[in-house]
Amino acid sequence: MNTPAPTTMTHVVTAIEAAATIAFAFSGLLEAARKRLDAVGVCMVAGLAAFGGGTLRDVLLDRRPFFWVAHAGWLWVLLALCAAAMLFMRARHFAPTERAMQWPDALGLGLFTASGTQMALDSGAPAIVAVLMGVVTAVFGGVLRDIVCNEIPSAFSDHRPYAMCAFVGAWVLVAAQWLGATDWLGLLAAASAAALLRVIALVTGFTLPRWSPDS
Amino acid sequence: MNTPAPTTMTHVVTAIEAAATIAFAFSGLLEAARKRLDAVGVCMVAGLAAFGGGTLRDVLLDRRPFFWVAHAGWLWVLLALCAAAMLFMRARHFAPTERAMQWPDALGLGLFTASGTQMALDSGAPAIVAVLMGVVTAVFGGVLRDIVCNEIPSAFSDHRPYAMCAFVGAWVLVAAQWLGATDWLGLLAAASAAALLRVIALVTGFTLPRWSPDS
Amino acid sequence: MNTPAPTTMTHVVTAIEAAATIAFAFSGLLEAARKRLDAVGVCMVAGLAAFGGGTLRDVLLDRRPFFWVAHAGWLWVLLALCAAAMLFMRARHFAPTERAMQWPDALGLGLFTASGTQMALDSGAPAIVAVLMGVVTAVFGGVLRDIVCNEIPSAFSDHRPYAMCAFVGAWVLVAAQWLGATDWLGLLAAASAAALLRVIALVTGFTLPRWSPDS
Repeated sequence: MNTPAPTTMTHVVTAIEAAATIAFAFSGLLEAARKRLDAVGVCMVAGLAAFGGGTLRDVLLDRRPFFWVAHAGWLWVLLALCAAAMLFMRARHFAPTERAMQWPDALGLGLFTASGTQMALDSGAPAIVAVLMGVVTAVFGGVLRDIVCNEIPSAFSDHRPYAMCAFVGAWVLVAAQWLGATDWLGLLAAASAAALLRVIALVTGFTLPRWSPDS
Repeated sequence: MNTPAPTTMTHVVTAIEAAATIAFAFSGLLEAARKRLDAVGVCMVAGLAAFGGGTLRDVLLDRRPFFWVAHAGWLWVLLALCAAAMLFMRARHFAPTERAMQWPDALGLGLFTASGTQMALDSGAPAIVAVLMGVVTAVFGGVLRDIVCNEIPSAFSDHRPYAMCAFVGAWVLVAAQWLGATDWLGLLAAASAAALLRVIALVTGFTLPRWSPDS
Repeated sequence: MNTPAPTTMTHVVTAIEAAATIAFAFSGLLEAARKRLDAVGVCMVAGLAAFGGGTLRDVLLDRRPFFWVAHAGWLWVLLALCAAAMLFMRARHFAPTERAMQWPDALGLGLFTASGTQMALDSGAPAIVAVLMGVVTAVFGGVLRDIVCNEIPSAFSDHRPYAMCAFVGAWVLVAAQWLGATDWLGLLAAASAAALLRVIALVTGFTLPRWSPDS
C-alpha cells in the first residue's frame, strides 16, 4: 500500500476489526454451545470461526506470520471471551446475542473481504483469484466452523447473500484499482459495498433465487 | 522433465486435462444440487471437486503457484459452467450426465495421478510419498467435496476401486522411472494403467473385497 | 535444541514415538471399521489419525519435510498395520484393542505435545501460539479422523480431558524454558505432565465441568 493511512482511519479500522473478530468468534461460540461441545471444543470452534478464514487465505497465498501469531494477544482475548461466555451465558441470551452480532459481523464481512482481496492483489494474483481470496477470508471461518460442527456450511446453503456480498465488494476493489483510485479509497469503497449489501440483505430478508433442478 | 513432449501429445494432454477438470467440476455440481446448496455453495463445491486435489498436493509439497492461479481463466470457465448448469439443468439430466462424465473422469484419474506422482518425484520425495501424492491429486478433490457436503467421502466408503486405480498407476510411474524409461513414456504408461483399471472396474462392476469385522 | 540428548534417552523417545504412532493409527483404524469404510478409507483414516496433527502443525509453521516424508518407512508400517488388521481383526477384538491402546496413546499425547510446543518455540512463536501448536500436534490427528468419518470431533465434545492435558503439558514446557531449565528437562517434564494427567483422567473417569447454557 503506497499511501499512508490517516491516523484516525487506522483507529477506526482497528476498532472495526476488533468488533468483527469478536462477532465471528461469537458465531462459533453459539454453534458450539448448540452442539453441546465441551470447553475445548467451544474455544477451538470460536477460534476457527474468528481466524480460520484469514489463516486459510495465508496458507494459500503462502504468507506468514498469521494474524494470530503476529497479534498473539488475540488468542488471550478469545480464551477470555469463551471463559466469560461459559460462565455467564444462558440459552435465553443466545437469540438476542446472535441478532446483536449481525451488525459487527456485516462490518467484518466488508473489512475482511477488502483486506483479503488487497493482500492477494499485492502478491500479484490475477483479479479473479484476488476476488476469491477476499471471499475466502470473509467466509471460510464460518465454513470451517460448520464443518467441524458436522453441518453443511450455512454460507453455502442458506440462500441468504453473504459470500455474494463479499464477491461484489471484492470486485469493487479490483475496479477501483483499475480506475487508478488510491489504495485507501479502494479499500473503503469495497468494504462499504460489501457491508452495505449485507445490511440491506439482513433488513429486507432478501434471498438468492433458487436453483430448482426439479422443475 | 528432460525430454520435450511432442506437440501433438501436448495438445492431447491439454484436451484430456480440460475434459477431466470439467468432469470433476460436474461431480461437485451434481452433489451440491442434490444437497440443495445455493449458488455460492454450488460454485464452491464444484471448484473444490475440480481443483481441491491438486491444491492440497501443492500445499503439502510447498509448490506455488497453484494451477488455478497460474491458469486463472479456469475459474471463469468454472463460474460459466455453474451458471449454465443452474439455468439449464433439471433433475432428469442428472443421472445421464453422471454416466456420461464417468469416462472423462476416468481419464482425469489417470492424468492427475501421473502428473501428481511425477511432481512429487521431481521434488525429491521417496517413492511411497510420491505415490501418495499421486493418489491425493486424483482423489482428494472428491474427498473435500464430500466433507463439505457432510458425507463420508465416497472414495473411502463405496468399495469400488478409484483410489486403488490411482495407487497402481502411480507405482507404474515409479517402476518406469526405476527401469530408466523416458519421462513421457512413464507418464503415458501410468496414466493409461490407472484410467484403464478404472474403466474395467466401471464396466465389470467390480468391488473391493470387504473387511467384515463381524465374521 | 542445544543440549545433546543422552543416547538411551533417544532410544526411549523413539520407542515411545513408535508405540504412540501405532496407537493413533489404531484409533483411525477402529473408527474406519465402525463406519464400514473400504480398504482405501481404512488406510487413509488411519494415516490421518497418525500423522494429521503433526502435518497440520508443520503446514501452519511452514516446516518441511513432514515426518512421513523424512521417515517414509512409517507409511509402509501403516500399510502393513492396516492390511494385518483387515485380515485378522474381528469386531470382538475392538473393545480390548481400544482399551489396550489408551496407554501408548497417553504417552503419545505427552510426547507429541512436548515436541510440537518445542518446535513452535524454536521457530520464534509467542508462548500462547507454541502452546496451541503443541495441542494441535497431539489432538488434530483425531480431529481430522472424526471430520472425515462425519462425526463431531470427540476431542471437542466428549467432556473427558484430552486436549486439556496437552494444554497443561505445553505450559509446563514454556514455564521450564522461562525458568532456564535445559531443553531435555523441559521436554521430559512437559511430556510427563500431559501423559500423567491423561492417565489420571482415564483411571478416575474425571470429566470436565459442563457448560449448561440451559440452566
